[in-house]
Amino acid sequence: MKPARSLIPIGTATLLPHTVHSVRRLEERLMDFVAKWGFQEIILPTFEYLDVLSVGLSPEVLEKCYKFPDSASGRVLVLRPDATAQIARMVAMGLGGNAFPLRFSYRTTVFRYEPEHRGRDREVFQVGFELMGQDSPEGDAEMVTLLVQVLDQVGLSSCKISLGHVGFLAGLLSRSGLSTGGRRQAEIAVARKDLPLLEDILEKERVPRSLVKAILEVPGRCGTLDVLKWGRRVAGKVPALLTPLVRLEQVYEVLKSKGIHESVVLDLGEFRGFDYYDGVVFDVFTESLGSELGGGGRYNHLIGRFGRDTPAIGFGLDLDRVFSALDRQGVTPQNGSEPVVLLAPSQLTGASFSLAQSLRQAGVCVVERRLERGVKQSMRQFMRKPSLSAGSRIVFLDEVIGQAPAISLLTFGRSSKVPRAQRLTLPQLIQELQNSTYGDF
Amino acid sequence: MKPARSLIPIGTATLLPHTVHSVRRLEERLMDFVAKWGFQEIILPTFEYLDVLSVGLSPEVLEKCYKFPDSASGRVLVLRPDATAQIARMVAMGLGGNAFPLRFSYRTTVFRYEPEHRGRDREVFQVGFELMGQDSPEGDAEMVTLLVQVLDQVGLSSCKISLGHVGFLAGLLSRSGLSTGGRRQAEIAVARKDLPLLEDILEKERVPRSLVKAILEVPGRCGTLDVLKWGRRVAGKVPALLTPLVRLEQVYEVLKSKGIHESVVLDLGEFRGFDYYDGVVFDVFTESLGSELGGGGRYNHLIGRFGRDTPAIGFGLDLDRVFSALDRQGVTPQNGSEPVVLLAPSQLTGASFSLAQSLRQAGVCVVERRLERGVKQSMRQFMRKPSLSAGSRIVFLDEVIGQAPAISLLTFGRSSKVPRAQRLTLPQLIQELQNSTYGDF
Repeated sequence: MKPARSLIPIGTATLLPHTVHSVRRLEERLMDFVAKWGFQEIILPTFEYLDVLSVGLSPEVLEKCYKFPDSASGRVLVLRPDATAQIARMVAMGLGGNAFPLRFSYRTTVFRYEPEHRGRDREVFQVGFELMGQDSPEGDAEMVTLLVQVLDQVGLSSCKISLGHVGFLAGLLSRSGLSTGGRRQAEIAVARKDLPLLEDILEKERVPRSLVKAILEVPGRCGTLDVLKWGRRVAGKVPALLTPLVRLEQVYEVLKSKGIHESVVLDLGEFRGFDYYDGVVFDVFTESLGSELGGGGRYNHLIGRFGRDTPAIGFGLDLDRVFSALDRQGVTPQNGSEPVVLLAPSQLTGASFSLAQSLRQAGVCVVERRLERGVKQSMRQFMRKPSLSAGSRIVFLDEVIGQAPAISLLTFGRSSKVPRAQRLTLPQLIQELQNSTYGDF
Repeated sequence: MKPARSLIPIGTATLLPHTVHSVRRLEERLMDFVAKWGFQEIILPTFEYLDVLSVGLSPEVLEKCYKFPDSASGRVLVLRPDATAQIARMVAMGLGGNAFPLRFSYRTTVFRYEPEHRGRDREVFQVGFELMGQDSPEGDAEMVTLLVQVLDQVGLSSCKISLGHVGFLAGLLSRSGLSTGGRRQAEIAVARKDLPLLEDILEKERVPRSLVKAILEVPGRCGTLDVLKWGRRVAGKVPALLTPLVRLEQVYEVLKSKGIHESVVLDLGEFRGFDYYDGVVFDVFTESLGSELGGGGRYNHLIGRFGRDTPAIGFGLDLDRVFSALDRQGVTPQNGSEPVVLLAPSQLTGASFSLAQSLRQAGVCVVERRLERGVKQSMRQFMRKPSLSAGSRIVFLDEVIGQAPAISLLTFGRSSKVPRAQRLTLPQLIQELQNSTYGDF
């Protein structure tokens, strides 16, 4: 009988062992890696008060939040829709300490309603990194450099990073005379590089020709320093347009002296979907994947919205997309070790446990099982049906009157029909199993 | 200005770096450890449908759940209140595969309303382990053994495990003629070892004298095999009372042949707060801590409630309480490494980055900073105020015309007034910093 309704909400995560193994390894490796850069992990609550967190969320994000009443306080709770806003709230409250600059990392899930559920998009697995209490081109460059290095760690060194500055386009749009709604729509059109939509918006609100031309050119302006040259021609002597270009140039110079600039594409049309970014912004694209793997930017006024003016910059990566990108590169993460099965009759329970413990200490995964018939009978049965045990290893422990129990190892090849049977000593067994243990990711 | 209302819900988790470091290390160590026993980690969704999950939850747990409407499906969602019920649901759906017995591990948080918020009890950090598809004294003993070993790994080898079987008390209560409500109350009174309350309940419902005497003795019956002897005297020839005793004896025998029984106290009054347990049950107490660190038991009918009859047994640990217990043992987990600060003028950005990378690869945590004044001037300033930098290490990189940049290390003692200044080569610096790096937990 098929269930009439789905048993688990579409878009939520059920991660089975082989996936979890890869996810945890990646998380651990990244957290260890960034710790060497001074980024320390924090864990924040899964839900908090909507009235408190909402000052850090855009109307678009607020609409997609999971909200529910708290019967303990009578207030409304919200499931974490965005880790950055939550960390900003924490730092504003002083919980992160005052030893600025602060460097934090996190691995968490964020929760959003998505109109179309593709994959696990209601509960998104993320890792992220924030540098708080510093506003300088060096700080911007540190985070872009860290992103390049993190991608390298992950195995995605061929990814390019688009680096822009929200100030340039914001400056153009603010001079265009667009309504607030029109500006927001135009920003979204630029972020999606949707030129026809952008043109529509600009024409509908009768933006002056010369500005329309410049704005429409923005999404196509990406490359190296020539992008900034073009920007300077458009900017003329307008400080609101020049300042972002100068900052980008400074950041690019630092990246150059670190030898990182070759992974970076300057892109004046780079514009991210969170309204709190107010300086440099950047994201990661791979050509093989349609969507971005992650990104970030400077948000000098977000922490201030929670009551404590502190500049900051950060970025996050979507782990599902990282694995999709790796998958398309042909990287298939290896599983953990498949356990060896250790079979012994009940009267050898103590000897079996002690053997299992020796093997585990030697790094071998072992599952113990009691034999319900004689050892020889059971071995014969396994030899007869080798296909059932393709690729596995079975250890038998047998009683020998007046001596230590006898150890036999059956190794079942993935293709060969007859398993290999060996009589071994404990040190030989350990060596044999360590050699045949599946490689770790 | 003090906020009129709290900014974060009381009872939720904000874990700062030194705590997270310990929590993550512990989680990783345990997951790696149990993987050697064949337990593989899974991750399940943070929320799911209430109508689906509720068949695995007792009315008491259901009352404490966070429930909210899903605007996508119109159904009610529930934040995970219990990991075991969720895994049972998953296995019943066949998502865990059919290669029984299945061994799963998890690290997660569970969410419950608690009437009094002490600590982080609305979002509880847990690790847990489940063995599914096997019903045998060996399976029971495997889980008790694993618990003993896990406690040993954690550093709590002095903890004792209370081992009982819900069937014995359930058998007595079912013969007592108590109402359903009365039985549930009596079970809770036994679990809390609240004898006066237990006596009240039994007297109110006029339970026969001889049974009252036996039931009142149950909570006090803990020790070794003599407990089972007493049980046999009470049981006479009643199969419902004898069966649990026989099973406990078998499990105890297996534990004895493994040499594990000395960590175990047989306790016929052991009765856990989840209504799904129906076989052996066990929990961990430390004398220093008032509450249990965790526990578990056999739940042979829980997976069946989700539509697939499969016996199972599992246990979980409350990480907060584990850390409290360690704390009371005087174990203070060490923090991760404190970053070395690397100071260099802007013109040495490239050399500074390359030095930082060499140090990080050697396992040293490094934070880079640009100098705003001359190197010598800045060094003098640090020498003048050593108290500001107690315990820290600062590396200066200085330009030398026609040569590689000069490396200086300032080491600030925790007590001494003047820092030690050394001029070093790169290999010397690496050696020096590796030696002085803070130990890891």
